[in-house]
Amino acid sequence: MTVSYNQSVATSRPWTFLALIFRWRGSVWKAIWIQYSVWLGLYFLVSAIYRFILQDYQRLIFVKLVDYTSARLSYVPLDWILGFFIAGVLRRFWYLYDIIGFIDNIACSTATYIRGDSERAKQYRRNIIRYCELTQVLIFRDLSMKARKRFPTLDTVAAAGFMMPHEKANFDQIQYNYNKYFLPFNWAWALVYNARKEGLIEGDYYVTVISEDIKKFRTGLAWVCNYDWVPLPIIYPTIVCLAVHMYFFVCIMARQYVTGAENDPNMIDLVFPFMTSIQFVFYMGWLKVGEGLLNPWGEDDDDFETNMLIDRNLAMGLKIVDEGYDKTPRLEKDAFWD
Amino acid sequence: MTVSYNQSVATSRPWTFLALIFRWRGSVWKAIWIQYSVWLGLYFLVSAIYRFILQDYQRLIFVKLVDYTSARLSYVPLDWILGFFIAGVLRRFWYLYDIIGFIDNIACSTATYIRGDSERAKQYRRNIIRYCELTQVLIFRDLSMKARKRFPTLDTVAAAGFMMPHEKANFDQIQYNYNKYFLPFNWAWALVYNARKEGLIEGDYYVTVISEDIKKFRTGLAWVCNYDWVPLPIIYPTIVCLAVHMYFFVCIMARQYVTGAENDPNMIDLVFPFMTSIQFVFYMGWLKVGEGLLNPWGEDDDDFETNMLIDRNLAMGLKIVDEGYDKTPRLEKDAFWD
Amino acid sequence: MTVSYNQSVATSRPWTFLALIFRWRGSVWKAIWIQYSVWLGLYFLVSAIYRFILQDYQRLIFVKLVDYTSARLSYVPLDWILGFFIAGVLRRFWYLYDIIGFIDNIACSTATYIRGDSERAKQYRRNIIRYCELTQVLIFRDLSMKARKRFPTLDTVAAAGFMMPHEKANFDQIQYNYNKYFLPFNWAWALVYNARKEGLIEGDYYVTVISEDIKKFRTGLAWVCNYDWVPLPIIYPTIVCLAVHMYFFVCIMARQYVTGAENDPNMIDLVFPFMTSIQFVFYMGWLKVGEGLLNPWGEDDDDFETNMLIDRNLAMGLKIVDEGYDKTPRLEKDAFWD
Amino acid sequence: MTVSYNQSVATSRPWTFLALIFRWRGSVWKAIWIQYSVWLGLYFLVSAIYRFILQDYQRLIFVKLVDYTSARLSYVPLDWILGFFIAGVLRRFWYLYDIIGFIDNIACSTATYIRGDSERAKQYRRNIIRYCELTQVLIFRDLSMKARKRFPTLDTVAAAGFMMPHEKANFDQIQYNYNKYFLPFNWAWALVYNARKEGLIEGDYYVTVISEDIKKFRTGLAWVCNYDWVPLPIIYPTIVCLAVHMYFFVCIMARQYVTGAENDPNMIDLVFPFMTSIQFVFYMGWLKVGEGLLNPWGEDDDDFETNMLIDRNLAMGLKIVDEGYDKTPRLEKDAFWD
Amino acid sequence: MTVSYNQSVATSRPWTFLALIFRWRGSVWKAIWIQYSVWLGLYFLVSAIYRFILQDYQRLIFVKLVDYTSARLSYVPLDWILGFFIAGVLRRFWYLYDIIGFIDNIACSTATYIRGDSERAKQYRRNIIRYCELTQVLIFRDLSMKARKRFPTLDTVAAAGFMMPHEKANFDQIQYNYNKYFLPFNWAWALVYNARKEGLIEGDYYVTVISEDIKKFRTGLAWVCNYDWVPLPIIYPTIVCLAVHMYFFVCIMARQYVTGAENDPNMIDLVFPFMTSIQFVFYMGWLKVGEGLLNPWGEDDDDFETNMLIDRNLAMGLKIVDEGYDKTPRLEKDAFWD
Repeated sequence: MTVSYNQSVATSRPWTFLALIFRWRGSVWKAIWIQYSVWLGLYFLVSAIYRFILQDYQRLIFVKLVDYTSARLSYVPLDWILGFFIAGVLRRFWYLYDIIGFIDNIACSTATYIRGDSERAKQYRRNIIRYCELTQVLIFRDLSMKARKRFPTLDTVAAAGFMMPHEKANFDQIQYNYNKYFLPFNWAWALVYNARKEGLIEGDYYVTVISEDIKKFRTGLAWVCNYDWVPLPIIYPTIVCLAVHMYFFVCIMARQYVTGAENDPNMIDLVFPFMTSIQFVFYMGWLKVGEGLLNPWGEDDDDFETNMLIDRNLAMGLKIVDEGYDKTPRLEKDAFWD
Repeated sequence: MTVSYNQSVATSRPWTFLALIFRWRGSVWKAIWIQYSVWLGLYFLVSAIYRFILQDYQRLIFVKLVDYTSARLSYVPLDWILGFFIAGVLRRFWYLYDIIGFIDNIACSTATYIRGDSERAKQYRRNIIRYCELTQVLIFRDLSMKARKRFPTLDTVAAAGFMMPHEKANFDQIQYNYNKYFLPFNWAWALVYNARKEGLIEGDYYVTVISEDIKKFRTGLAWVCNYDWVPLPIIYPTIVCLAVHMYFFVCIMARQYVTGAENDPNMIDLVFPFMTSIQFVFYMGWLKVGEGLLNPWGEDDDDFETNMLIDRNLAMGLKIVDEGYDKTPRLEKDAFWD
Repeated sequence: MTVSYNQSVATSRPWTFLALIFRWRGSVWKAIWIQYSVWLGLYFLVSAIYRFILQDYQRLIFVKLVDYTSARLSYVPLDWILGFFIAGVLRRFWYLYDIIGFIDNIACSTATYIRGDSERAKQYRRNIIRYCELTQVLIFRDLSMKARKRFPTLDTVAAAGFMMPHEKANFDQIQYNYNKYFLPFNWAWALVYNARKEGLIEGDYYVTVISEDIKKFRTGLAWVCNYDWVPLPIIYPTIVCLAVHMYFFVCIMARQYVTGAENDPNMIDLVFPFMTSIQFVFYMGWLKVGEGLLNPWGEDDDDFETNMLIDRNLAMGLKIVDEGYDKTPRLEKDAFWD
Repeated sequence: MTVSYNQSVATSRPWTFLALIFRWRGSVWKAIWIQYSVWLGLYFLVSAIYRFILQDYQRLIFVKLVDYTSARLSYVPLDWILGFFIAGVLRRFWYLYDIIGFIDNIACSTATYIRGDSERAKQYRRNIIRYCELTQVLIFRDLSMKARKRFPTLDTVAAAGFMMPHEKANFDQIQYNYNKYFLPFNWAWALVYNARKEGLIEGDYYVTVISEDIKKFRTGLAWVCNYDWVPLPIIYPTIVCLAVHMYFFVCIMARQYVTGAENDPNMIDLVFPFMTSIQFVFYMGWLKVGEGLLNPWGEDDDDFETNMLIDRNLAMGLKIVDEGYDKTPRLEKDAFWD
Repeated sequence: MTVSYNQSVATSRPWTFLALIFRWRGSVWKAIWIQYSVWLGLYFLVSAIYRFILQDYQRLIFVKLVDYTSARLSYVPLDWILGFFIAGVLRRFWYLYDIIGFIDNIACSTATYIRGDSERAKQYRRNIIRYCELTQVLIFRDLSMKARKRFPTLDTVAAAGFMMPHEKANFDQIQYNYNKYFLPFNWAWALVYNARKEGLIEGDYYVTVISEDIKKFRTGLAWVCNYDWVPLPIIYPTIVCLAVHMYFFVCIMARQYVTGAENDPNMIDLVFPFMTSIQFVFYMGWLKVGEGLLNPWGEDDDDFETNMLIDRNLAMGLKIVDEGYDKTPRLEKDAFWD
């Protein structure tokens, strides 16, 4: 959620995207440097063994091994499996983002339909927002490492102001062996209903408009949890990951420079595996795209900024219901009036 | 539905996904070990025949057969057909999960709009939930092996409390040669309508809000059945499966080590088919992803946990309508009030 | 719609999908056996000509022809075009199935909102269902071979009870050079409106709920017709089909065993083209998947069971409005009441 | 919209799709015959130059050129770019068709909710339909060649009866430098509103139901225009088209029969480029699928039949509001009554 | 948004798309000419070094380098990664365009449901439009370079008439460290609500219809911002871009003409790299499609014309609410009346 680069690529110039390469945060370099180092170390180790340790007759076997593996590398179908895997994961990533929960619509409906300048009306408006946001905090605590670190216990949630002491008492009172995410939403709906009873909402239909906005927010968050419960079958990411790692593991042998190899008799000894390194960057980087998208609730550079979203939602929601209510400028003829 | 690994892959580190490889439950190893064992056995059998039994002139023919098959392996287009097949099946899997039926929205609407602390009001709320859940049980019994084992007969459903005796009598009374899934939903709608008549619901529009939530739940479950009625045309999974198995069946011959083979004269005799084994794991594992996703109603590790969903829905639904009704904390100024 | 195999593949075991191969109905074998026989006949004919009829100098030319064709087979891009074609066709198939029309929601709304135990109320409810189903019959007659055979004329539709004589008179009275599918729907809407006028529906909003359900059913059926009017551009299936057939036509020559061929000097003479047969099954079977999905209104094993759907809709719809109205079990405390 | 072939492919038989090949209208043959003739002409021209004009030393260079180009043909990635391009374009084509505007739902709502047998009520119903259809005519005139030819000026639209003289006066009166598509829709909405005022519509909510149907029709047509304003970035179709044409342009040289070519020493001289012709048909035909789908507003065989749709919409719409209003058959017991 | 070519490709003729090649604006030539020039310069530089500077023994190494790189070019998987990348980006592009905000529906609802010819009613209608459009201006200023250049400060927005001075005062008064996009929408909703209070809107339900249209517009714009906040993970475009550039960088060496190269002994020296240039145009052009689509808020030829959209929305919106209100032609019998 954080590594933003839209500004720098808005207008496409020859160097636009190339410039992205020299960043570190969220970059492919940061994502793969450990793996690349390990791989390169192993490559040079094997290379050194061949060059300095092996006897001639051993070298012959080594050369045959290189031939054998290098001719069979194509058995591992990296392109296909990565392409389809990432297309599938990308779709899921955008879907999760779509339902992650932005509170604005609830706030706007509340500000429009719950009337009154009294303190009580204001409390109604603010509490509806706060209760919705409270559930988002509770759910993010269970999903996101970042949110969990910020709110290790329910007390910290209360201390941060998302929950009042008497609300927490109410919340703790319910004993139940499933999650209690639903409770604050029920409070919010009840507030909406009561506001109608007290005449702060002036029509039955308006009640359902606000309720529908809350329901949409709730349903989105519920599906965020549901998708956490049923992930992509574990085999799929496993074999994709295995394929890429196995491919480069075999490359350690298959891409060695040897004299007398069948496949490439005229080969030049560059010592450093330039082309295989390029290949490593691409495939491993592509895999990292998939890994990053598969579970965006962690602490990667590109994972959802759950804490930032929580703060934004609360601040924005309260601001909208406070400032957005009934402060319309007076009606005047506009500049284009004829 | 069960093999959850999101926690372990939340933050992408070099070893994150590799660690998944060492699990057993839901893993590729568990999925393919039988097939791999059979395949390896056949491979070594053929290998032994070549090495120890065949005469020289027979070996010449054997070598030609190896050449023949190995040159024609590429006729079988595994990558393409697996990639597109699994993309199509994956889309269907997520769709089925989307409509599998979570009862929360019905419960929330019921708790908000059916008013009253009387026992009768509470019965209304609880029964609406129970009737909806009852249909889910009835449908899951017909689709899911797990649910069928738990509820072999209608009596077991009644005994588990999803159905009261007088309700079962009512249910059994209807003679009909199609399914009777619709009945409990009709009960639920009638309850909603009656609640309005008795004044427990205070507006006509609220009736339709609850009814729409029930309808959405019903429609989802109906489509779960419809998709069971019209599966993917049987040819598609058949030829995908056939392609993968036929490919590796041919590999038993084509990947044998022989001396004097045309395609790979300098080949080294490793006895064990390392690279083909890697290939076997990938393709067969990929196929298993597809097979697992194609029908998620069985007893595979990654199939839907229908029984768990039934229990959760009933418990959660009843809790919401009991605890979620009118227990809102009193209104107070929140911590951010200025 | 008919070849159901979900039960047998619910739980993925090694032999699960392989078992599907031994079926006949809806199978790849049934789909391709004619084409395969013709192809094999031609193959052996050409083979026999080469072996028994051609003179030596003719054989030289034959060998060159085999070389020529076999080296150019890759010009025909089967994988790509089949993969994308079937993905596109599959999406359209599911979409058609989504809108094909299940009457349940109309029946449930009708049963809930049209009140009264009188014969007239019952007639209202039953006729709304029947009129909706009547249109489905009329549309299926024009699209589906199966439905057309069952209902060759409008009289057969009336005779089957979908239409009463006085309704048919009303229907025939309208002269018009486009289709008259809309008429029964207009009857249904008018019935809903009249039921409100007579007080059988107790709120304006309820009228629109039923009307929307009917509209959704109507819109789905209208789009079934629209998609029949504008199919996939004919070039697309044509060239896909042509590509597959042309490929195997060329194979008749290219895959012959000849001595002295450039590409495969050491080839062994198996007489029977094993590997090409496997390839034939896969590609032709894959093509058959596409052909079957492209127009699911015919009489293939996997085409929509339109007649079964019509019967089900009528029976289910009438049952729901009869049995689903106001037969709710009396309210009691449930088993989980505490 | 016109080349219908569903009837002939409803049931999949071996010869089903092959039969499509022998059509001319909308066929691949019609689409590519000019390009193929030009290409073949150039091919034979170059062939003749090589065979009859070039000197020996020139032939050597020619052969090297053939080798050079034929070894590099694979640089041009036809499969990939065509596959993804056509998948993207196909999605857009179906989307455009979805929103192209069928007037039936507006007509059905109007017939149901605008009551009264008076001439005035009938005028209301008919004019609402006509105004909606008028906008479709105005928009199709700007998009579709076919519609533009039929209605070259606004006067022809009026003359065809879509617009009355006093309406045209009203329309022309507004001076404005953007399009005026919105105007007839505003007339339609105003009619709906007035009908309510005059009591022809009996409930506020019914007003919004008709209005929503008109709005959906309008929004669809607006997006048809929006997608005309922002097409696929021009580079995409350009490079796809360029790739295919460049490929076959290079083939003119690369696929020549020459003696002494590196890549194919034993080649036979067939004079006519059979296999390349097959390839030409497939790739160029595939490209034509994409070109046809990219802009379906022209006069190709497979483009939208805008004029037919306009006529159908007007006739169907007027028929529905005339015949669909209040001509319901009298209620009777149906044939399945028990 | 600007390079329109639909007219020229409406009807598919052989030369239709080829003609697009000779355009400059938005063309592939304009997109890649700088990069191609640089690449060609480097290619000739290396070529010249080989031909004129290197000694014989150095040339041998050079030849081996050419062999080495040219045999390993296939390590970089351009086709796959570009195909899937652009398919994913294209989907996102259309989605952004779908939600970019066309004001027509708001204007139509406002013109229909806010009644009255008084100046005050007209002010209501015009101000609702203007406030919605104001937010679009504020958001586009933050996203789009073009809009930012046109409206560098809030004062320029006010000066352009989108904001009245007393509204700007109201706007500036709110101190807040998140964006204030919500404010004008709240004004608009409050206007709608007040219009009801003053009796200009004649039904509660009509209020919600207008409000929903505004909410849809607001939600679309909010998601435009949200997608700016969370772009595609930076790794994905980076590695795609890197892959293409690295490929052609390696080509500078790998595609050199050298004598004695392993892979292509008979190669002819064309000096100019024809085929590689073709390849450059395709791949780099394909990449440019992706870059252009990835962020359409810049100043590329194919980026969204934000300023044009702002002007259109304001002009069209005001025109609709002024001219679209209650200027319906009088009811008459239409031309098809029988």
